[in-house]
Amino acid sequence: MRASQFFISTLKEAPADADIVSQKLMLRAGFIRKAAAGIYSWMPMGLKSLRKVEAIVREEMNRAGAIEVIMPIVQPAGLWQETGRWDTMGEEMLRFKDRHERDFVIQPTSEEVVTDLIRGDLKSYRALPKNFYQIQTKFRDERRPRFGVMRGREFTMKDAYSFDRSADAAGVSYDNMYAAYCKIFDRIGLTYRAVAADTGAIGGDRSHEFQVIAATGEDAIIYCPDSDYAANIELAEAVAPAGERPAPGAAMEKVYTPKVKTIADLVDFLKADIKQTVKAIVVDGDGEDGQPVLLLVRGDHELNEVKAGKLDGVKSPLTFASPDAIRASFGANPGSLGPVNFPGKVYADRTVAKMADMITGANEDDQHFTGVNFGRDCPEPIVADIRNVVAGDPSPDGKGVLAIERGIEVGHVFYLGTKYSQAMNATFLDEDGKPKFFEMGCYGIGVTRILGAAIEQNFDAKGIIWPDAIAPFTVVLCPVGYDRSAEVKAAADQLYAELVANGVDVILDDRGERPGAMFADWELIGVPHRVTIGDRGLKEGKVEYQHRRDSEATGMAVDAILEHVLVKLGK
Amino acid sequence: MRASQFFISTLKEAPADADIVSQKLMLRAGFIRKAAAGIYSWMPMGLKSLRKVEAIVREEMNRAGAIEVIMPIVQPAGLWQETGRWDTMGEEMLRFKDRHERDFVIQPTSEEVVTDLIRGDLKSYRALPKNFYQIQTKFRDERRPRFGVMRGREFTMKDAYSFDRSADAAGVSYDNMYAAYCKIFDRIGLTYRAVAADTGAIGGDRSHEFQVIAATGEDAIIYCPDSDYAANIELAEAVAPAGERPAPGAAMEKVYTPKVKTIADLVDFLKADIKQTVKAIVVDGDGEDGQPVLLLVRGDHELNEVKAGKLDGVKSPLTFASPDAIRASFGANPGSLGPVNFPGKVYADRTVAKMADMITGANEDDQHFTGVNFGRDCPEPIVADIRNVVAGDPSPDGKGVLAIERGIEVGHVFYLGTKYSQAMNATFLDEDGKPKFFEMGCYGIGVTRILGAAIEQNFDAKGIIWPDAIAPFTVVLCPVGYDRSAEVKAAADQLYAELVANGVDVILDDRGERPGAMFADWELIGVPHRVTIGDRGLKEGKVEYQHRRDSEATGMAVDAILEHVLVKLGK
Repeated sequence: MRASQFFISTLKEAPADADIVSQKLMLRAGFIRKAAAGIYSWMPMGLKSLRKVEAIVREEMNRAGAIEVIMPIVQPAGLWQETGRWDTMGEEMLRFKDRHERDFVIQPTSEEVVTDLIRGDLKSYRALPKNFYQIQTKFRDERRPRFGVMRGREFTMKDAYSFDRSADAAGVSYDNMYAAYCKIFDRIGLTYRAVAADTGAIGGDRSHEFQVIAATGEDAIIYCPDSDYAANIELAEAVAPAGERPAPGAAMEKVYTPKVKTIADLVDFLKADIKQTVKAIVVDGDGEDGQPVLLLVRGDHELNEVKAGKLDGVKSPLTFASPDAIRASFGANPGSLGPVNFPGKVYADRTVAKMADMITGANEDDQHFTGVNFGRDCPEPIVADIRNVVAGDPSPDGKGVLAIERGIEVGHVFYLGTKYSQAMNATFLDEDGKPKFFEMGCYGIGVTRILGAAIEQNFDAKGIIWPDAIAPFTVVLCPVGYDRSAEVKAAADQLYAELVANGVDVILDDRGERPGAMFADWELIGVPHRVTIGDRGLKEGKVEYQHRRDSEATGMAVDAILEHVLVKLGK
Repeated sequence: MRASQFFISTLKEAPADADIVSQKLMLRAGFIRKAAAGIYSWMPMGLKSLRKVEAIVREEMNRAGAIEVIMPIVQPAGLWQETGRWDTMGEEMLRFKDRHERDFVIQPTSEEVVTDLIRGDLKSYRALPKNFYQIQTKFRDERRPRFGVMRGREFTMKDAYSFDRSADAAGVSYDNMYAAYCKIFDRIGLTYRAVAADTGAIGGDRSHEFQVIAATGEDAIIYCPDSDYAANIELAEAVAPAGERPAPGAAMEKVYTPKVKTIADLVDFLKADIKQTVKAIVVDGDGEDGQPVLLLVRGDHELNEVKAGKLDGVKSPLTFASPDAIRASFGANPGSLGPVNFPGKVYADRTVAKMADMITGANEDDQHFTGVNFGRDCPEPIVADIRNVVAGDPSPDGKGVLAIERGIEVGHVFYLGTKYSQAMNATFLDEDGKPKFFEMGCYGIGVTRILGAAIEQNFDAKGIIWPDAIAPFTVVLCPVGYDRSAEVKAAADQLYAELVANGVDVILDDRGERPGAMFADWELIGVPHRVTIGDRGLKEGKVEYQHRRDSEATGMAVDAILEHVLVKLGK
């Protein structure tokens, strides 16, 4: 491609409402333009990278035996009513009426449509397994769209759905997709982790997120540097500390703690070790008596709401008790709560269960207890894992301690079981002649989000640094004085032709820009390999090569540059 | 591709609500499945053909210098309000509100968004011309979706938009797209005509429709077999008959015509030649006096509403006068109307203007006049071309007579002028340093519709007959007894490998179906080239080749079949 026949439109400054580096750089480099909040047009430069991601995803999905289809963007409400998701999906699912007042949605995902699609066409166990995928526009009406293409409203997703005879066969399909996802993210050239994730209320029991590692990521990823353990924060298990609970060493005493509302206040006021304090969290119970449930975590730990939401006797989804309900049950306001004299259900985190001489609220405003001990001052609690892990916690596999890094979720594989096939009565005839529900899995990749994630992982002060595989162009030729010097033009044209002949996706910058502006453009756009061709160098038979990560250019003989670039590209 | 790894799902019968042959065949052959009225999923087989159309369109658009972008499907109302189309677009444009009650549309087309996109980025005449296109999902909320993918609600369109410095330059862009469209439809392998079309109210003055010729087409195409004249029925000019108007030959006489309401009644009742009768059509005028206008066409001709809608003094868009208004102005009901004693504005079609001794309504219920002559019995009318042409009319270029055939519109090129750039204040700085409005053109191709049109043009009782370029597979190998015969399997596998190695898009039917069912499937699906491999033939060193249009198969030596198929494919 010649730049004069393409469309390059870089900006000095990103619009003021851009709030993350990838969004700023994509706007400045002319990859996207905003049409409305969370809705973007893909400019020629951005579309080139997007198509490369799509092509890699498509190739690996096909290679894994998945079959491409396209399901409609506008979907009838009836299918969503069959599974009940018409009611349970939140406002993120955009609903509207057509001119005849019939209800529709703009697809946020396609479990319903794909199940409807196959229930007429997949009739026999002989046709299984099957895996259908699409690379298609999705819409989620985010309340607060942000981070550019990372949390936009209109986006491109690859969504695949597998159909199997049995749970075991579905496991094979799951593993197959897991492997395909690894190939996809390997080929794209991103540093990522596949982390075990919670399966939530859907029913299946296997789920992994593919997380691109980036300091700006929204998600916390827990992993063990000494083993292959990796999970997201929702799922990662906080194991019990080793050893027995120490014997009580102090008497329980009530302390007047005026204006102490938080653990930080408490530690400050009592000059206490935060590890002796216990945080009391009150959530709604699921009983008809309306009694709340008390959850205890150590003062420096965080409640894990997903874990807590699954506790016996706790209302699901997890709901924090109202101040009124707390006063009614505890006789005190939040800030002074604890297990002593609370007659209801009490869950203690595994770490809390090993504590002695705890500092807790006294269930009396402005009062705390020190020296609290389970079994002596209050009943033994129910022990459960209800907190987020922290760096340094023992790894659940016993092979070291956990570390935490940030990630951006770009893929998700999920075993669904028969949730959708049962709801939609989608069956096949098994070998025994009996109808059975399909065992399903679903597998998503955020195609547009990958570009944002790749930038969050690969940028510097000058702009984007694309991995070769998804760069809009792999190589840029920057002739200095293309319009003025016949030698420069001839050398640039020749190298361009040779690279094209070798199947390299190269752009020749024939715009006649000043070198400074030209280099700044390509550094911002992030093309990984650059060859600069100028009169001065040519006189000595030289051109310059510079990788986007190199701090300076390397002089090189004209007749060696083609080979050099091809080697760099692994050709 | 091996059939066992693909997805083939044919139906014996099309669903009862399928109303056109292409829709029936696409459903039966497993190309599409209905999700809602006018909304379809694309099954693997259909998607393969669709992607081939997309690829051809994309290649030729790129070759013509157009640059691909993707604009959002969900578009903010504000842009549509800028051009006023928020109000003027009918209910076909689907409008909805997001969760924050902001107005949006699902894009039916993208003039507004593309103009918004470039007004920040295209600043100088040096950047022109530019042509941006997308291949993207569109939605039009048709009141009565029908004909499958031909008049669906959700569909894929390629829409391109050119931006030029001047009307002359825009003409060059227009011609460039016209030529690209010819290449596209030539490569797809369809019989089509580019016909001049009306530009309507948009303002530009050049417009051509690309019509695929098919007996079932919705549109009438007018062309001259002896020249290159072609136009759609809305635009085709009905020239005046040669010669002078004959002198009056009869006196005007009033005839009692009880129950005569139509021209057919009149001809029948009077035993008259229909070519002596005149049809009176009353439409609303545009004056403040509310006076209607009388339009006269010969009894066997049809009014052309587009032509009539442009007449001076006629309300635009054309509106037929109400029965009450007609009675008030004519003193009679429709069925007995004519120019005699009508004091208002009268337009006569060019053919009527050359008639003498006409038979017309008498503006008195159940009464007609015979022997009516302009200038003697009523004033000379205003003469205009206001009728549809009919087969046998002289060609407007004077080179023969017109013929009519039916077509399906699959493409449209349109010169827009500055309609959108003015409305949206989209300007560039011209060489003289002054801002000027972009001269625009828009260019559409109904990507999904092409598949329906191709089938309407190419089918028989057994199913579809695809042109090679857009067949889901170009060649099908039908081994008889693939699972039973080692020889058949070996021969089929070898030919399959050779065809794949030669870049042929071949499918090997390894499903083990009975020959009858297997052949019926592929004839329905419409793969153009079939090779049958069976034990009996192999014993004599033979296989069979059959093109989908051949009435029977041709025996052929095993070692000649590869070459034969490659020659058939033009390889």
